[in-house]
Order: sequence, then structure tokens, then C-alpha cells
Amino acid sequence: MRIGELSRRAGVSVPTIKFYVREGLLPAGELTSPNQASYGEAHVQRLRLIRALLDVGGLSVAAIREVILAIDDSGRPVHKVLGTVADRLVPRYDREPGEGIEEARERVGALIAARGWRVHPESAAAEALAAALEALEEVGHGAFTEALDTYADAAERVARADLEYVAHHVVREELVESVVVGTVMGDAIFSALRRLAQTDASDRVFGGAG
Amino acid sequence: MRIGELSRRAGVSVPTIKFYVREGLLPAGELTSPNQASYGEAHVQRLRLIRALLDVGGLSVAAIREVILAIDDSGRPVHKVLGTVADRLVPRYDREPGEGIEEARERVGALIAARGWRVHPESAAAEALAAALEALEEVGHGAFTEALDTYADAAERVARADLEYVAHHVVREELVESVVVGTVMGDAIFSALRRLAQTDASDRVFGGAG
Repeated sequence: MRIGELSRRAGVSVPTIKFYVREGLLPAGELTSPNQASYGEAHVQRLRLIRALLDVGGLSVAAIREVILAIDDSGRPVHKVLGTVADRLVPRYDREPGEGIEEARERVGALIAARGWRVHPESAAAEALAAALEALEEVGHGAFTEALDTYADAAERVARADLEYVAHHVVREELVESVVVGTVMGDAIFSALRRLAQTDASDRVFGGAG
Repeated sequence: MRIGELSRRAGVSVPTIKFYVREGLLPAGELTSPNQASYGEAHVQRLRLIRALLDVGGLSVAAIREVILAIDDSGRPVHKVLGTVADRLVPRYDREPGEGIEEARERVGALIAARGWRVHPESAAAEALAAALEALEEVGHGAFTEALDTYADAAERVARADLEYVAHHVVREELVESVVVGTVMGDAIFSALRRLAQTDASDRVFGGAG
């Protein structure tokens, strides 16, 4: 199909499509003449994936590029790709680690050991968790981390459901894409559900006073 | 204390402190002379809160301003403040709702009814959930939502733990602050824990192949 039809099918404007091609997010179309390129279904699907990661997942163009490179690198074993993707999809903080960061890291290390999780204690996710625990301590809400085990239990359940979904896919590219989509969209879904459940719980606890 | 000491105590530069005062995030100090203002412990605590919401929570300055206005509005009943805060802390999407949005909204309404959650089906969180479900459908991963009940169970557990933490606080300002901190930092904590649990689950399922 021509770029106009691709634009209509995927709901993405022609200039934006050209931008994604320049940025390496979308493969160029096949040249059918010096001024015209042809695009296929894979382009439609890829554009929808980019929009979902961008609009709902809130990822930056740079993060999406890294994730797509990992999806497309067919030489890498699946498990390694999943690791790369999980690492890239962890929010980074500009925050300078403060005095309490070592203590927070130790706490994360202890949690990982207690859970028996086979993960690197220096992974991006472990570091993000330590940064969050340190920030809580710093704003005087260190006691919030009493809920940490409840959170970890919930995370384990959700991760098992995530992996069940991923394991449905046998084609490598689909499998990796399902991890990316599930990881990013799962965050958005959980965050929204948590707000709904909180509003309900708060109505039950404080509603009478309002 | 003078602004220099406030800067040192809170780990925030003097120009940044002045920016937060101009933006309405931080109350001005008490003028002790035409060129000098004095700051107290409340300023230190407020600056730490702003940094946590900004750096770890990933909130925009505009979102932080709204949240702080809700915290400081002592005339509003607690339950209403919590509602405002929960609504403001839901990620917004620029995404234009597509064809499937009505079906996604119905699905969210059915989930809310099935759970017996006392929430508005038009709340920001419900709309965010519908947008995520629609996006999943659009990228061909609608089947991921088979995990929705597992996610909702996990969200309920976590929300109960969140509310238990909030209910520890009796002073109104502390209570509302604990909701803000818990909501924003809880997202960051859950997201990091989910990555760790996923990496572990993926190692167990796919590790042999890598």
C-alpha cells in the first residue's frame, strides 16, 4: 500500500510516519519508484505498537527505539531479549542517590533473597525499587514500606499471569512483542485498577465523614 | 532558617527553590527584611515531597501544583480530597479514542459492577483503564485482558494495604500527604517489583533456552 493508505489504516499522519522512519522506529517502505514506496501489514502493526507504547505506555521515542531494536534482533536468545526489554522499560530517575541509598539497596537485596527471585540485585528494576524506598524514607514515609510484602505478593501473581500470556505465543517476534505490550500496558492497567480500588476503599473508610 | 540553609537541608538549589515559590508549589518564606526571608521545617518537608513526586513519581510541575492545592485546601472533606488526588494522579493520554473505546468502556463498567466498587464509571481512572484496553485490542493483544481479573485482585489487595497505611495518620494534612505519597510511590514500587518478579518467572520458563 502507499503511505497515504498506511496513514489512514494506522491512524498516524504521513509526516509522523516519515519521522518514525528517520528515527529508526519503523522500517522504510520498499521503493517502487524513485519517489514512491510501498508498505505492508507489518508496517500497520508496527505503527500501532509504537502508538500504544507512546500514548498509553508513556515511553519516550528513545526508549521505544531500544525496545524495537531488541524485538528485531533475531540473533538474541529470547530470555536475553526479555531481560533487555524489562530493563529498558523501568522508569529512570534523574534523582541523585542520597545518603540512605545503600540501606535501601540492602533492603532490596534482602527482599530478593527472601523471595527466592533469580534476578541481578544490580538490575535497573532493583535500582528503581531502592530509589523509591529511599525517597519514601526521605519524605518521612518510610513506614509505607510495611506494605512491601503485600506489594511483592501482588507483583508475583501479576507476573505469573503475564508469563502465561507470553507463553501462548510461539513465533519469536510475537512472543517478544507480547512481553513489551504486556509489560508497558500492564503498568497502565494496574495503575488505573489500583486507583479504582483505592477510591472504593477510601469511600468505605472515609465516605461517612464526607 | 535562611534560603541557603533550606537549600542545603532539602538538597534543592536556591534558584530551584525560588522557581517552586513562583510556581506556587512552595509557600514564600516570612519576610524578615525587604531582601531576606525566613523558612521553617514545613518548607524542608514540602521540598522533599516535591522532589519525590517529581523525580521518583515522574509527575509534572503542573500536576504537583494541583495535588498540593488539594492538600492545602483545609475546607474540603478528606474523602473529596482523596478523590481529587486519585483523579489527578492518573496518567493522561493524548491519544484520540478510537472506534473500540465504547466497547472498552462497557467492559470497564462491567468490571466495576462485578467487583462492587463504589466508583464513578466516568472517573479518570476508569477512562484510563478503557484507553489501555482499547489500545491492547488495537495492537492485536486483546487476549492479554484475560489477566484482568488477576490484576484486579492484586489491585484490591494493594489498595487495602494503602488504606491501612493512610488510616494510621490522624492529622488531616499528614493523612492527605500520605495518600499522595503512597499513590505515587506505590506505582513506582509496584512497577519495579513486577519487573523483578517477571524476570524471575521468565528465567524459570525460558532460562533453559538462553
